[in-house]
Amino acid sequence: MATEAAADDATDAPEAYEALLDRVRRWNAVGSAAGVLGWDQQVMMPEGGTPARSKQLSALSSVRHDMITDEETGELLDALDGAELTDEREAVLREVRREYERADAVPVELVEEISETGSEALQAWEEAKAEDDFEAFAPYLEKHVELKREYAEHIDPDRDPYAVLFEEYEPCLSIGRAESILEELRETLVPMIDAIRESDADLAVDTFEGTFPEDEQEALAREALELVGYDFDRGRLDVSSHPFTSGNQFDCRVTTRFDESDPLGAIGSTIHEYGHAQYVLGLPREEWGTPLGDDRDLSVHESQSRLWENHVGRSRAFWELFLPRFKERFPETEEATVEDAYEAVNQVYEDNLIRVEADELTYHLHIVVRFEIERDLVRGDLAVEDVPEVWNDKYERYLGIRPDTDSEGCLQDIHWSHGNFGYFPTYSLGSVMAAQLFEAAEEEIDDLDAKVADGDFDDLQAWLGENVHRHGSRYETNELVERATGEALSADAFTDYVEAKYGELYGL
Amino acid sequence: MATEAAADDATDAPEAYEALLDRVRRWNAVGSAAGVLGWDQQVMMPEGGTPARSKQLSALSSVRHDMITDEETGELLDALDGAELTDEREAVLREVRREYERADAVPVELVEEISETGSEALQAWEEAKAEDDFEAFAPYLEKHVELKREYAEHIDPDRDPYAVLFEEYEPCLSIGRAESILEELRETLVPMIDAIRESDADLAVDTFEGTFPEDEQEALAREALELVGYDFDRGRLDVSSHPFTSGNQFDCRVTTRFDESDPLGAIGSTIHEYGHAQYVLGLPREEWGTPLGDDRDLSVHESQSRLWENHVGRSRAFWELFLPRFKERFPETEEATVEDAYEAVNQVYEDNLIRVEADELTYHLHIVVRFEIERDLVRGDLAVEDVPEVWNDKYERYLGIRPDTDSEGCLQDIHWSHGNFGYFPTYSLGSVMAAQLFEAAEEEIDDLDAKVADGDFDDLQAWLGENVHRHGSRYETNELVERATGEALSADAFTDYVEAKYGELYGL
Repeated sequence: MATEAAADDATDAPEAYEALLDRVRRWNAVGSAAGVLGWDQQVMMPEGGTPARSKQLSALSSVRHDMITDEETGELLDALDGAELTDEREAVLREVRREYERADAVPVELVEEISETGSEALQAWEEAKAEDDFEAFAPYLEKHVELKREYAEHIDPDRDPYAVLFEEYEPCLSIGRAESILEELRETLVPMIDAIRESDADLAVDTFEGTFPEDEQEALAREALELVGYDFDRGRLDVSSHPFTSGNQFDCRVTTRFDESDPLGAIGSTIHEYGHAQYVLGLPREEWGTPLGDDRDLSVHESQSRLWENHVGRSRAFWELFLPRFKERFPETEEATVEDAYEAVNQVYEDNLIRVEADELTYHLHIVVRFEIERDLVRGDLAVEDVPEVWNDKYERYLGIRPDTDSEGCLQDIHWSHGNFGYFPTYSLGSVMAAQLFEAAEEEIDDLDAKVADGDFDDLQAWLGENVHRHGSRYETNELVERATGEALSADAFTDYVEAKYGELYGL
Repeated sequence: MATEAAADDATDAPEAYEALLDRVRRWNAVGSAAGVLGWDQQVMMPEGGTPARSKQLSALSSVRHDMITDEETGELLDALDGAELTDEREAVLREVRREYERADAVPVELVEEISETGSEALQAWEEAKAEDDFEAFAPYLEKHVELKREYAEHIDPDRDPYAVLFEEYEPCLSIGRAESILEELRETLVPMIDAIRESDADLAVDTFEGTFPEDEQEALAREALELVGYDFDRGRLDVSSHPFTSGNQFDCRVTTRFDESDPLGAIGSTIHEYGHAQYVLGLPREEWGTPLGDDRDLSVHESQSRLWENHVGRSRAFWELFLPRFKERFPETEEATVEDAYEAVNQVYEDNLIRVEADELTYHLHIVVRFEIERDLVRGDLAVEDVPEVWNDKYERYLGIRPDTDSEGCLQDIHWSHGNFGYFPTYSLGSVMAAQLFEAAEEEIDDLDAKVADGDFDDLQAWLGENVHRHGSRYETNELVERATGEALSADAFTDYVEAKYGELYGL
């Protein structure tokens, strides 16, 4: 009996821990309620609903902020400082402390000013993009840079402000590592894309030209989701102007969009979102509302979507499985071979200026341009007025193409109109992580390729669940990757993967 | 200038008023966010989402309760006690004070116990109804009666507990008036339905028999909504197992359901929900989140749905307008005349045991039975174990029919499994109010009938907007009715209406 009591003492958290966790669960429940409102706004809400929706969301956001920064949160964290806790509980405290400290450091007025600037800047950006008028957007970009520098200074006046902002999206992956990975991508990809441009390889890119009605595409997207194992009892597929994923481990929904001339695009985008959803649906249910039941960060999230989109959805094996289904919906493609499909989904658009239309290779150079520009803006090394020229120069240098207009250049993305500096790199980091995870999965799963071709995704699901999903935010990003793959996060697996794949495709 | 300053003093609210209103807007924004989650749960949410949804809703509900009962609310109300305010502001204070006092009087533990009992009782009720086993449900009903008596006692230990509970739904319409109206309905309708049973009138009730596919019915329901003026830029039509309306003055959505053998039912139910939505969409936008922009109460709400469902949707004029559209969707009914349709939508189901399938007349006797039973339960004048027999006796006495089972008897409705005592009467009060309002509208609008037949609803919309919708909760219920109709709320208009209409239909 004495042993049992001792064990109880060791494993029972102090009361303060439970009290803190109750608070955390409650503020996360409010945050996830806001997520439902966000989904509804993009998928279901009639046009006229905006004024009320903005107020509902702003009330939830301020309620949540008040709950986090309530002095009781600080007191409970202080009370737990130095307490003997299990590793899991230490991990929870690490995450909660970080959230509390960030929220507490920044004055609420500044958060509101950033949010208001975002609304104005969004409108200004939409008009500037439509009019190809960077100067009309420049003052808003300037304002965002100033406000975000101020924001970073509140959090830590002694550090590189861009590093601090990057941590909003990547709380535990250093900017140093991110920078070196992006540099390596640039060094690998710039010459590769040059070589592809010079290559006389003749890919079967016309096989899927034509008009493919939306309703058939939607039925096919549903079929693809069922095939890879999406659980429709815990999710939905809907249409929105920008595909996204939203939800929690009980109910995680994906959206897609359709272009009648591009059925492959919708399939790829649906599988991408499925990867996000599968991550969320694989988080531990009993930990919902705590960091152990929450996704790690944007790069890990993106690693899951890219793994499914690129390493599964752009593989020959997948098209062996899926092409017959595709042809059933679209009999006009009955002549297409698996090789045709493989070439069509992997063609490199070396003359494309638009990030969201980019392929698996050029994509990262689009990101590198944005990363270098936003980093320099935030660090004070680049003036807003010089952005268009620097943008165009970098496109020329890295991609060998130069935009004619700013609409197709530095005005193309929405991110900076929200003041989101530090977000772009996570897209590339996610792809790099996807390659590293997939390489490890391939080593551990027998005949993964054959299983994909057979529509048997169980082992891959299990591997991802075991090595990534079930951990939530238990480990910091790099530790998560090391535990899953045995190596620190690097661009190696990605460069190996693209060199082999595109070397073969383009005869490099 | 002096005059202007004085005028400022007189019209500017004290700071406390603005501070209070900020709080009210914020808690109502949280409440309306919960409304979106409720809509999603019934219309969109996949099955698996329940655990997270329950926690999200319970977090929002407890956050909202904390905001209302925060001591600052009480202090601001105290500070405003006796302040010189405009009538509008006095009305706002009246409503806020009532909400605060109710929320503050009841211990949060009791609220939670009632909510938990509701969850258990709901499941027990579903099983009991399926098994026709009242005894399995009885302990939960007993518990609800006890808890709700306790609840009422916290609010006012000196008053009739049923009257206190009734005020949850009808905060400002006395139970005395409600009781006398229900008695008058009973006295009018019992002999009328007897007479109808004896009547040898031969109504064209078979005209719309057949199978009417759901998708055509849905298209027709949309057409009906467009015809009566529903603004789809501020709403949606979806399907749910129980039709309902949800939203605010910017975005108010309706649902309906379809039965392939009953296309008239779906049209009636859609128009009913439209009436609710039109009320909400007509509330003043600039007052959203305050009592001036909030609906008055359940009887006023129901008056709007019943007015459209019964006084418009069950009129000859409406079927002159709508029957051609109906026939276009369902050419198999091309022989039907307006009179056929009028008779079909107005037939009295004198042998029907089920409230939700009742017609415009018998409906109120279904309500009277429930009202008398729940009132006596809460007042301690009836034991739970005696409910089935008393129910059956009353059905026999008032409707001339006796249920064979409790599933078709006292177990048929969901309301008591939620512990909602005092809700049922609002259905009948709404119908009575609808008749009174419609009578007043008819007096003031030239040729309303001809306008309905023409599809011109502008004057009716304007009349309802002017006399009901725009006032929100500015006036207490009876004052609202008196201002609109010149008379206190009574059953007179309703009895005149049904006596004329059914007298003619059944040759009474």
